[in-house]
Amino acid sequence: MQNQGETGLSRRDLLSLVGAVAGSAAMYQAMTSLGFASESTYKGPIRLEGDAKGASVLILGAGLAGMTAALELRAAGYRVQVLEFNSRPGGRNWTLRGGDSFTELGGATQTCGFEQGLYLNPGPWRIPYHHRAVLDYCKRLGVTLEPFIQLNHNALLHASNAFGGKPQRIREIKTDFQGHVSELLAKVTRQSKLDEAVSVQDKEILLQALQSWGALDKNYAYKANLISADYRGYARDPGGGLHAVPVAGEPINLSDILQSQLWRYLRNFALHEFQTTMFEPAGGMDMIGKAFAREVGDLIRYDAKVTRIQQGDGGVTVSYVDSKAPAAPQLAKADWCVCTIPLSILSQIQIDVGARMKAAIDAVPYSSSIKIGLQFRRRFWEEDEEIYGGISYTDLPIRQISYPSNGYNRGGRGVLLGAYVYGGANAYEFTSMTPADRIARAVELGSRIHPQYRAEFENGISVAWHRVPFTLGCAGSWTEKLREQHYDNLCQIDGRIVLAGEHASYIPAWQEGAILSSLDAITRLHERVVRT
Amino acid sequence: MQNQGETGLSRRDLLSLVGAVAGSAAMYQAMTSLGFASESTYKGPIRLEGDAKGASVLILGAGLAGMTAALELRAAGYRVQVLEFNSRPGGRNWTLRGGDSFTELGGATQTCGFEQGLYLNPGPWRIPYHHRAVLDYCKRLGVTLEPFIQLNHNALLHASNAFGGKPQRIREIKTDFQGHVSELLAKVTRQSKLDEAVSVQDKEILLQALQSWGALDKNYAYKANLISADYRGYARDPGGGLHAVPVAGEPINLSDILQSQLWRYLRNFALHEFQTTMFEPAGGMDMIGKAFAREVGDLIRYDAKVTRIQQGDGGVTVSYVDSKAPAAPQLAKADWCVCTIPLSILSQIQIDVGARMKAAIDAVPYSSSIKIGLQFRRRFWEEDEEIYGGISYTDLPIRQISYPSNGYNRGGRGVLLGAYVYGGANAYEFTSMTPADRIARAVELGSRIHPQYRAEFENGISVAWHRVPFTLGCAGSWTEKLREQHYDNLCQIDGRIVLAGEHASYIPAWQEGAILSSLDAITRLHERVVRT
Repeated sequence: MQNQGETGLSRRDLLSLVGAVAGSAAMYQAMTSLGFASESTYKGPIRLEGDAKGASVLILGAGLAGMTAALELRAAGYRVQVLEFNSRPGGRNWTLRGGDSFTELGGATQTCGFEQGLYLNPGPWRIPYHHRAVLDYCKRLGVTLEPFIQLNHNALLHASNAFGGKPQRIREIKTDFQGHVSELLAKVTRQSKLDEAVSVQDKEILLQALQSWGALDKNYAYKANLISADYRGYARDPGGGLHAVPVAGEPINLSDILQSQLWRYLRNFALHEFQTTMFEPAGGMDMIGKAFAREVGDLIRYDAKVTRIQQGDGGVTVSYVDSKAPAAPQLAKADWCVCTIPLSILSQIQIDVGARMKAAIDAVPYSSSIKIGLQFRRRFWEEDEEIYGGISYTDLPIRQISYPSNGYNRGGRGVLLGAYVYGGANAYEFTSMTPADRIARAVELGSRIHPQYRAEFENGISVAWHRVPFTLGCAGSWTEKLREQHYDNLCQIDGRIVLAGEHASYIPAWQEGAILSSLDAITRLHERVVRT
Repeated sequence: MQNQGETGLSRRDLLSLVGAVAGSAAMYQAMTSLGFASESTYKGPIRLEGDAKGASVLILGAGLAGMTAALELRAAGYRVQVLEFNSRPGGRNWTLRGGDSFTELGGATQTCGFEQGLYLNPGPWRIPYHHRAVLDYCKRLGVTLEPFIQLNHNALLHASNAFGGKPQRIREIKTDFQGHVSELLAKVTRQSKLDEAVSVQDKEILLQALQSWGALDKNYAYKANLISADYRGYARDPGGGLHAVPVAGEPINLSDILQSQLWRYLRNFALHEFQTTMFEPAGGMDMIGKAFAREVGDLIRYDAKVTRIQQGDGGVTVSYVDSKAPAAPQLAKADWCVCTIPLSILSQIQIDVGARMKAAIDAVPYSSSIKIGLQFRRRFWEEDEEIYGGISYTDLPIRQISYPSNGYNRGGRGVLLGAYVYGGANAYEFTSMTPADRIARAVELGSRIHPQYRAEFENGISVAWHRVPFTLGCAGSWTEKLREQHYDNLCQIDGRIVLAGEHASYIPAWQEGAILSSLDAITRLHERVVRT
């Protein structure tokens, strides 16, 4: 590395150089020594090289997939037009603020009553650090990010039939489970019951590791003392001045943790897609959609409901009506079409594609999901319970309560995510209620976890994704079997049409899937245009 | 809880009411059901009730302990004066920015060359969510907080003699260790080797829990597959469009993890004092000191070096000289004195206190610590390695590299904490070097973890706390034995003098300790004033 010196070579340039000089084995060696352990499917800003020959592209949908395609295809020399059902850009990239109003299937209209500065992201709400495409567009488009707190050790785990219905602190369940597991394993290790699996040299180190990791005492026991308290928290915190000695609390025993099933939630903090450091755009997720629209807004025809997609040798013709005042269909034409309409909607539109793609379009069910935002007159979770951001999990139908990852410690009003149900019967149950009943139910259930709900609740808003006219569901719900049968057929270019969106990715329901799918689709489309 | 209704009762009011009506057992029950699992030593804003009788207090030191005392004692009716050695408020609550300059013991002067907006917090740099006193003052004084990322799963663990010196991702070490431990315990559980310790009913649930928690497959094995990859990350991430299938990587085997000793760092992410959600003030830690100074700045005499502390029946007399232009001592007098001067300094000042307090003052050694801030021309840790905030640990003398918990993903320059050594030989070794040599050494060592250092480094600044004239060390370094012998003697009021600061707390080196110590000291002082 010594020849980097002051040349200001970028890491990518450097790798290319190493590759050119020493071959790919050396490059792999350099890559790993520079710290890339894993390969991302995002390779940095797309380069659509070669002549677009003045071709035109019609993009259906101004969500992240559609706007990514619009941005990059225009930059590559295409003539681009976008049709969008809503009166705003973003699609499921959406934020509700005070004064916003929307009508769901069935006709119920809700108007958001949140105080200025407070919001709910009804769709995507968090960005993993390894979603490199989303992050790169945020960087290029100037979207400010702030940490999204997934794991807050002081948030709660709640099981209706365990611990007398009393919520437990995550830090206690997490530490106590790990402590007991470590104690058990240390015991059998010392009893030489692991001798087949662990070598003599490793045995002593394993014991040290379990002691350090599991907060065990010098006898490898996990119990009430200042060692476990240093991990799980104290019954009485250390203080200042006189009478400041800390007091340890009693760990929860293993059997109670196992029976409570609360251990099931620990994986929600360990999974790669939820690992630190996660992000959210400051001010609301739609800052991303708005940033895209600053670039490509001039290409978008809003309030355009697609009713028919035709293609032939000469190009693609799409019929659409004004979604607010449906009248005679209008026509939009182009050489090519990138269609990002959710499959739940697209399967109901007549489209000229082959049988395989049509079967794929029709095959993928959409998951049900609801989110409910609740405004409270004070941030009691912070003021009373020292919960700053993060998520409490429960077996109640609301499933989770998420605390805002912003505006910490400042007092005043706050908006909670008072229910987030993804899939399953509870999502359908909430979806079937009136908006007012959903709110009432979320407040009633939530008050079993936070009794302050009753006194502090002000207003709420709900989005039940199966009733959202522009998606009729939350996200493509693939199974392994469906993927085998249909996925490649869905993603192939069919004549002059290619599909994109989270449904055409291996990262369903995430914005990264939408963008990566779009980049892959337009790359292949462009290759075809350049070749022909 | 039903009678809370719309009364807007605060939780504290409600608890008092429950206590008054139903007695303290009911109140404890109510407290726990409202979510307080642990008792904090901070009870909310201090109430110094009763007549201060126009008494005067001289406070020595305008760090957080001193300014807390100044704020609260003036509010309680005292006449307050503060003497401060430095030309700024805050003491160890300190932030270095471009243009700042300071001189260490030995005469070396450093001037910070950071770009505008970048900074180093040489002293405290993070605030646990349970440091309620610090958070409450931040709230009252309008200090904006943002999350401090302690655990970033994608940051690195590095051991010079393991894995060929190649840093490992925290997520891999963490997941693989937990996976192997789960596999081992599942194995002995299934072999009925745990039958004494785990009941038959619990055994099945334990296996399920280990499977979920440890990413085990259906045979309770931890190995390369998409189950473990969902936790530890993939060799190839899932993508969008065609050829988007994710690929799992090979876990690191248990023996390699054990031998590497990298498991030792996992506790740094589990300890209560480092648990999410941690905070830092937006813009630098000194935002807290500056916020205090907006309130009490008018009471502070800066550049005042205390040389003698006398007390008698009539009051306290403190001699001081101008620290920038020492001349004849000046005198400050008051009825009472709150002395927050670090013991490392105070032990060298003649002070009229009893033998027990004097012995306590002399007894406590101060820990050695250094921090080095390094500016780079680009945030390569984010751009090349997807590390956003958090800390990498190493066995190299720099011990850790911490990435900024702000300004994420925006490009441009960045400042790393390029070394943070607390205690031990490495801290002394760095302290003994010239500032230029410290920087050169940190860059050389850090480049073994991030080779980009060599090309991207611009400038740096170091604070070696044993050479800082106003503390001569980082923080009071108590042992259990020292506490037994001296702690209570240190905290007692001696005539008209009481000591405060992190050194007079059970939370040494933390700002919370300084504030709680101060609140306890002035509470007792005030009681004495009211009584006499």
